[in-house]
Amino acid sequence: MPRHPTYAPSVTGMPGSVYSTLAERLSRQQGEVYPLYIGDTWMEPPEGCRMEDLRTSEFPGLHRYSAVEGHPALRDAIVEHVRARSSVAIERSQVLVTTGATGALGAMVGALVAPGEEVLLLAPYWPLIAGIVTAFHGVPVAVPFLEASSADELVEAVRARITERTVALYLNTPNNPSGRVLPRAWVEALAELARREGLWILSDEVYEDYVYEGEHVSTLALAPERTLATWSFSKAYGMAGNRCGWAVGPKDAVAQLRKVSTHSFYSAPTAAQLAGLRALQGPGPQWAAQAAAQYADTGRKVAERLGVPPPQGSTFLFVDVAPHLDERGLLGFLERCVDQRLLLAPGMNFGPFPHHVRLCFTCSPPDVVLRGAEVLARLMGR
Amino acid sequence: MPRHPTYAPSVTGMPGSVYSTLAERLSRQQGEVYPLYIGDTWMEPPEGCRMEDLRTSEFPGLHRYSAVEGHPALRDAIVEHVRARSSVAIERSQVLVTTGATGALGAMVGALVAPGEEVLLLAPYWPLIAGIVTAFHGVPVAVPFLEASSADELVEAVRARITERTVALYLNTPNNPSGRVLPRAWVEALAELARREGLWILSDEVYEDYVYEGEHVSTLALAPERTLATWSFSKAYGMAGNRCGWAVGPKDAVAQLRKVSTHSFYSAPTAAQLAGLRALQGPGPQWAAQAAAQYADTGRKVAERLGVPPPQGSTFLFVDVAPHLDERGLLGFLERCVDQRLLLAPGMNFGPFPHHVRLCFTCSPPDVVLRGAEVLARLMGR
Repeated sequence: MPRHPTYAPSVTGMPGSVYSTLAERLSRQQGEVYPLYIGDTWMEPPEGCRMEDLRTSEFPGLHRYSAVEGHPALRDAIVEHVRARSSVAIERSQVLVTTGATGALGAMVGALVAPGEEVLLLAPYWPLIAGIVTAFHGVPVAVPFLEASSADELVEAVRARITERTVALYLNTPNNPSGRVLPRAWVEALAELARREGLWILSDEVYEDYVYEGEHVSTLALAPERTLATWSFSKAYGMAGNRCGWAVGPKDAVAQLRKVSTHSFYSAPTAAQLAGLRALQGPGPQWAAQAAAQYADTGRKVAERLGVPPPQGSTFLFVDVAPHLDERGLLGFLERCVDQRLLLAPGMNFGPFPHHVRLCFTCSPPDVVLRGAEVLARLMGR
Repeated sequence: MPRHPTYAPSVTGMPGSVYSTLAERLSRQQGEVYPLYIGDTWMEPPEGCRMEDLRTSEFPGLHRYSAVEGHPALRDAIVEHVRARSSVAIERSQVLVTTGATGALGAMVGALVAPGEEVLLLAPYWPLIAGIVTAFHGVPVAVPFLEASSADELVEAVRARITERTVALYLNTPNNPSGRVLPRAWVEALAELARREGLWILSDEVYEDYVYEGEHVSTLALAPERTLATWSFSKAYGMAGNRCGWAVGPKDAVAQLRKVSTHSFYSAPTAAQLAGLRALQGPGPQWAAQAAAQYADTGRKVAERLGVPPPQGSTFLFVDVAPHLDERGLLGFLERCVDQRLLLAPGMNFGPFPHHVRLCFTCSPPDVVLRGAEVLARLMGR
């Protein structure tokens, strides 16, 4: 049975991006643009941690492969960093350095999910996680959590969607796109549920440094035997283009993850690892603390202007624009934004949210973000 | 049915690395070591194309995401480069920038192969390709080609292994690990077979710059409608640690590949893309030509000392050591090498070759490589 010119059904079923259409429309506009649709950081990384600071003479092997599990010095620094943050004692063998959290979650899904098996995603979720599960021939299952008003309600929403094919539960707190930080009692209840039901937990903690209200709680401390957690230098230190992050989990699980990561990207970029090492051992934490103060301020101002609650964490606001949609729905609304040079992400990217838009308040300087938010506020009649 | 603490069967079935055992044994040795098991480049990349040459002030967005399909300027440079090399006219939409050829081939397999479908691999093959197919729940099928003495014999070997589940044929010329360059008539015959049988072709051309005898022939010119080809900056310009390469194929296919790559590593590292761009537009080709002359010289000297034919291309020799194995087989032989501080790759990594070892003659300076080859020659009684 000839295959050419067709593709794997899993991939043809994946939606393409809506941005190309919108970006083309945007390119016809004149004046300052507000591309607040992507999750990125407008600031440069800390001084001393940039590419120009990595000298070949100082780092022999700077342009050569690193060990597939990551540069030994970086893995040791990550062990110290995680231990200091979470009080969880981990060992080097529990750390895998990856191409950002994207690479880490890919390795997790590849290692855990057989074709047709299901991963529960607390929704709204980071958009790539659904595609990662699909690319490995698994089935993403959304579990909306915005409506839950208690840990019990959330646990019941998750439990109701567990089948005999459920392998893992994905959660992301502080949350992209909602800006929510899950309360301790909720995370504890989810960890307990996972233990009762025999699920793995995929814990996406890339916004740990960006909590403005409440506290960051990781299941790594609560259910270490089943938690695969990920962080990234991208979000923490303004290094998204470097493509470097890491996964932490039980030693045996990390050995399985490594098999997949080796076959996805071999080793994480060496220069990115060294830049991350310099950040962790030097100005990184202070840079992140200053960035967090600025992000919190910008996020609060945007929320105030839009008349929505301020973000508890992360770098996003997720805004319900249902009252402002016409017969053309969300796409029509996004086009009206674009006509005023504002690009936002559609709610459908994050789960069953056809009436929401996501705004990133850190991907452009604060004044640009605030002028972009002004466009949205006016379209919302605020 | 609880999944924790088990994994996807595809991944638990993948072998771990034999190197950790050997590396530990190596660490007990004293004196100069010969780690000739990895495919890498000992030389630094061309001047002007190193990390320290990438200044934040010169490249705004150096540490931010690039477009997921790659930096526009780099894609344009790749279009020109491929056109100049192969006389194949391609467009920007046919180029996807990836995390090395590893990322490119991962995207190809993810886009093409449904669970249980088969990919034919001309063997010996680049070791990661079998694991890439397995990680996406496909089935790698080895087709030995070393024994073939004509294009007809090779075509018959491939044809005999085609089933109704066969999706694609993977070939790699110049070949890792054998150092062979497939003759034009053979590549033409394979392209014709693929067309007749409705197969995709995965064409791994990362050693195109390293041909010492014969000519490099790409199926891109012969069967452009079904060829997905990949190259990398890693092998061409000594940038393996940068993790950057690219895929070329029909526009529609590249759009499908992009869905998978976005969910594997999002965008290729931005600094690595800019370094690659500088190499392509500046000293890259000349650097590669000089490197090729040196590699050819070293490869020839190593082959002569070992009493095997010189490499036609790539950076490897694949040596049959069957007469020198004792009852402990290849692992015993590898341990005897390690006891003399030489680390080689076992033939089983490259397909059904339990009596071969692979030696990379470019991963250390020539004098170190030659002293390492001396160890192997003596163990072979040469």
